[in-house]
Amino acid sequence: MILAKVYVTLKESVLDPQGTAVQRALQQHGYDEVQDVRIGKYMEVRLNLADKQAATERITAMCEELLANLVIESYRFELFEVNA
Amino acid sequence: MILAKVYVTLKESVLDPQGTAVQRALQQHGYDEVQDVRIGKYMEVRLNLADKQAATERITAMCEELLANLVIESYRFELFEVNA
Repeated sequence: MILAKVYVTLKESVLDPQGTAVQRALQQHGYDEVQDVRIGKYMEVRLNLADKQAATERITAMCEELLANLVIESYRFELFEVNA
Repeated sequence: MILAKVYVTLKESVLDPQGTAVQRALQQHGYDEVQDVRIGKYMEVRLNLADKQAATERITAMCEELLANLVIESYRFELFEVNA
């Protein structure tokens, strides 16, 4: 079994209103040291595969096809072998 | 400047309908090897701090107060020293 940790974030050039809202809320709660907040999606995907190379290809395809909107988002992932 | 990478995920005991929906969509697109999908929030928080110990305390407070709903979510974070 392989666990893929997938991170989908907005591209730098894309405005992040959700991040801005959280940043303001933190600052209003006295966390003045907060300079910037960017918010993205974190997904844990368990794959019934044993081979990391195959998992890399499949997760890449899943990201490109479904998990990330490539117009505004970028993605990265890490793979871990785990017990079933 | 310190960059905190914060991961907020649903506790294991909490149902994840969003994750289930993504799992089904992946499987319908032919990704049969997908066994389970859990979805959470990924946040990058830039702090105008130099000291990692102070950053650990402040980010913990932010998570406990605002960034995570401790009733249903758990959080973890990593700290990185970055250029301003």
